[in-house]
Amino acid sequence: MKFKVQDVDIETGGTLVAILNKHDALMLDFHTGDRLRITKGNKSAVAVLDLAESSKAVKRGYLGLMEEVLKRISAKQGSTVNISLEEKPKSIALIKSKLDGRKLSADDMDAIIGDIVHNKLTEVEITYFVAASYVRGLDMDEVVALTKAMINTGQILKVDRYPVVDKHCIGGVAGNRTTMVVVPILVAAGYCVPKTSSRSITSPSGTADTMEVLCNVDLSIEQIRKVVDKVGGCIAWGGAVNLAPADDKIITVEHPLSIDAEGQLLASIMAKKGSVSATHVLIDIPVGKGAKIERMDKAKHLRDEFMKLGRKLGMKIVVVITDGSQPIGNGIGPALEARDVMWVLMNHKDAPQDLKHKALLVASEMMRSYPLSHWKSRHGYHYAKQLLESGKALEAMERMINAQGAHVASPEKIKLGKSRLDVKAGKDGRIVHIDNVSISRIARVAGAPFDKGAGIYLYHHVGDKVAKGDVLFTIYAENSQKLDYAKDYLKQYDGVVIE
Amino acid sequence: MKFKVQDVDIETGGTLVAILNKHDALMLDFHTGDRLRITKGNKSAVAVLDLAESSKAVKRGYLGLMEEVLKRISAKQGSTVNISLEEKPKSIALIKSKLDGRKLSADDMDAIIGDIVHNKLTEVEITYFVAASYVRGLDMDEVVALTKAMINTGQILKVDRYPVVDKHCIGGVAGNRTTMVVVPILVAAGYCVPKTSSRSITSPSGTADTMEVLCNVDLSIEQIRKVVDKVGGCIAWGGAVNLAPADDKIITVEHPLSIDAEGQLLASIMAKKGSVSATHVLIDIPVGKGAKIERMDKAKHLRDEFMKLGRKLGMKIVVVITDGSQPIGNGIGPALEARDVMWVLMNHKDAPQDLKHKALLVASEMMRSYPLSHWKSRHGYHYAKQLLESGKALEAMERMINAQGAHVASPEKIKLGKSRLDVKAGKDGRIVHIDNVSISRIARVAGAPFDKGAGIYLYHHVGDKVAKGDVLFTIYAENSQKLDYAKDYLKQYDGVVIE
Repeated sequence: MKFKVQDVDIETGGTLVAILNKHDALMLDFHTGDRLRITKGNKSAVAVLDLAESSKAVKRGYLGLMEEVLKRISAKQGSTVNISLEEKPKSIALIKSKLDGRKLSADDMDAIIGDIVHNKLTEVEITYFVAASYVRGLDMDEVVALTKAMINTGQILKVDRYPVVDKHCIGGVAGNRTTMVVVPILVAAGYCVPKTSSRSITSPSGTADTMEVLCNVDLSIEQIRKVVDKVGGCIAWGGAVNLAPADDKIITVEHPLSIDAEGQLLASIMAKKGSVSATHVLIDIPVGKGAKIERMDKAKHLRDEFMKLGRKLGMKIVVVITDGSQPIGNGIGPALEARDVMWVLMNHKDAPQDLKHKALLVASEMMRSYPLSHWKSRHGYHYAKQLLESGKALEAMERMINAQGAHVASPEKIKLGKSRLDVKAGKDGRIVHIDNVSISRIARVAGAPFDKGAGIYLYHHVGDKVAKGDVLFTIYAENSQKLDYAKDYLKQYDGVVIE
Repeated sequence: MKFKVQDVDIETGGTLVAILNKHDALMLDFHTGDRLRITKGNKSAVAVLDLAESSKAVKRGYLGLMEEVLKRISAKQGSTVNISLEEKPKSIALIKSKLDGRKLSADDMDAIIGDIVHNKLTEVEITYFVAASYVRGLDMDEVVALTKAMINTGQILKVDRYPVVDKHCIGGVAGNRTTMVVVPILVAAGYCVPKTSSRSITSPSGTADTMEVLCNVDLSIEQIRKVVDKVGGCIAWGGAVNLAPADDKIITVEHPLSIDAEGQLLASIMAKKGSVSATHVLIDIPVGKGAKIERMDKAKHLRDEFMKLGRKLGMKIVVVITDGSQPIGNGIGPALEARDVMWVLMNHKDAPQDLKHKALLVASEMMRSYPLSHWKSRHGYHYAKQLLESGKALEAMERMINAQGAHVASPEKIKLGKSRLDVKAGKDGRIVHIDNVSISRIARVAGAPFDKGAGIYLYHHVGDKVAKGDVLFTIYAENSQKLDYAKDYLKQYDGVVIE
């Protein structure tokens, strides 16, 4: 059938879309989501059909096409094109079968993830995949297949070393920049650690946001490879490289219903690790009220699943279940956290001891479990402490910062928000709870992570005795307006419970 | 937060959409599917957020809005608007709970269906509802709640009569215009039958397409009421009135995966019946190879479900399980079917006896089960036959045709496609199968239902003995090109099996 082209001035950046007037589609028995092959001369493209209800959008006899399709078939406004119905991707039938309770093979998973990455499936179709995986569950074979499919459809960082260590924290704990201390310790110990981290999604800072205070984190895969070759490790932003890109598309359709499917969580994490050629993976699962995992049995179950998945993927896994009941470190927000990290690495008097202790615990767990081959004996906590306190870890950090492109040389030069507010204890007593969710929320309202200097600095932790009027924490914001937002939020809840 | 308005020249006709540049959304921690309240002065609207990957679509600092939103808040290109995050509809949490296996209450179902009809849910969210209902299943209470919610969110035809009869056929059988014979018989008998029918979706003709050959079917709800008041019945196109509109939106997201959920099927059918105030419903379930329902056990199960649902809705249900193994009537395609129907009503010598017999069977089942109160005894097949053969049913049909707006007065004047091809038997033998799917496909390829005169006329049915060279059927098309399409299809399969 012949249609005239209408140039619709919009780009989705995802699936190719062609728009027909609803009446034309009705006549042709075409439906939303059908695949159309659009041909002009010897060029053709396949697009997903969408319908325009009104003739304002797309007139009858016209086919609405976006820039991307127009380019591919060298068409423009008013060109005549031929359209025909194309078979739908086979992955759709596979998704249907999963919805019906059938198990997906590795080939099935490759087909589905391949089509997701190559924009061949619509959001509705991806939603069915997520719903099916969530309700029917994915067994371990399926999670393995999903993980491998995610790795193979993205960029892969090839690292010619052994062991290659990566680390992941399940998250939900404010502050907690453990990664930025653990990586330098492990690099100082001789491990290769090509760490890619995320920016904040709902927290006041992600590791990439905090590292960015100190140096550039926006590295290409080639730049990561060079940095890692040179200094043995890096802490870069994963979003700048195309590791396991299926994940983002799946998360987009999970978000509206806050779907949190275990199989997809496992695959998502391990795919990022596989994408940087990790041979050893350190997983930190913080447990406690306000953390992402609130119950110990759930944490242990997750640990077991990670161990199983690691075995099937041929990776060594070390899982550390840690205390996630309150913020770790004193600073919350990119600049304040970066200063804490540097203070720990510099053995500064103001270094938060909880962050130092946790980092040593986590790093030493890897060292004890998988010692380097040239070591004469296993090393643990004391060796990690020695690397940190001798300044070796700081040296490793400085090498990484310089190789990535330094921003700030010393913690004293890190800029903090100029508008500040001290929040004081309303009564005498003991701090019984510091709520991760509330503290994070205040820091975000104050401007973190977008304003690097915004956030919270805690002077006390759970268990401390305080007197009425003692400063509990300081809020930092870029300007007084943002500080006012935080003040407003404080009226509801300040996050610190004194009894 | 303040944004400048960018007028994006597209209309969806569904959910209100606002588009942000991906980078702005990332900064604000906004996600696809989030609800934004957009305010200008004292006017505001809530829209669903979509993200533009490129700044070509929506520049940073701009909010892309469509005509519909612009009108509501009196904004135009370059206006400054304020945006804030709005709570998502509560129905989303209900859909999530169904996905998690919880049962939905009547209030829950009202909330979900209300939000679907009022364009408050995105396609992704509706997809989760469909997936959840499909995988978890809907129990009878939920189907009842869904049916009622669908009825109450659409237009309702109020009919001040009793009984009000409606009829539905599960479909899949080529030809089979039983409705157009049954309705006149029942109207002649004194029942009130406000019948709304669909157009073809995948078949060569829907009842509305066939009736349209004879008269106007595009009636408003007020026109339907007038016709029914005047002549006791009608056969109109349901698509012109807004009966149970949630159904269409649900079907749109079912289509990509060909989801066929029983609960939704039951609710969808019964909601249309409830919307015309039906008190008595006649359900025809054709069973056989190539029909929608291929196995008797499935048909019986469906019958039981209809009976249960009817009881809960306070409707009397009559279910007839019929032979759906081959086409019914000789004509397939709007004009050819309309001619068959008129021939049956006129007791013409060429009237297809199978169509006549089936219509009598179906109509008499209602008459026997629920006789009219003024009848002295129950009436059945013989009374139906009498109404048909005496011309009373024809009179009723003519009254309906005239009240709706006649197109063609007599079957001789119905125009058939001018390009014709006789398809002949390739060998001597007996016809053992006529395939509904293939016959329908040939008729569609030849142009039905869009070309009213296109289709197939069958000279033989299953069981007939034929000799090599006997004409099995004639294909009608509007022009020789379309006839060629049908010829091409015939090379693969002609739909008639002789042994």
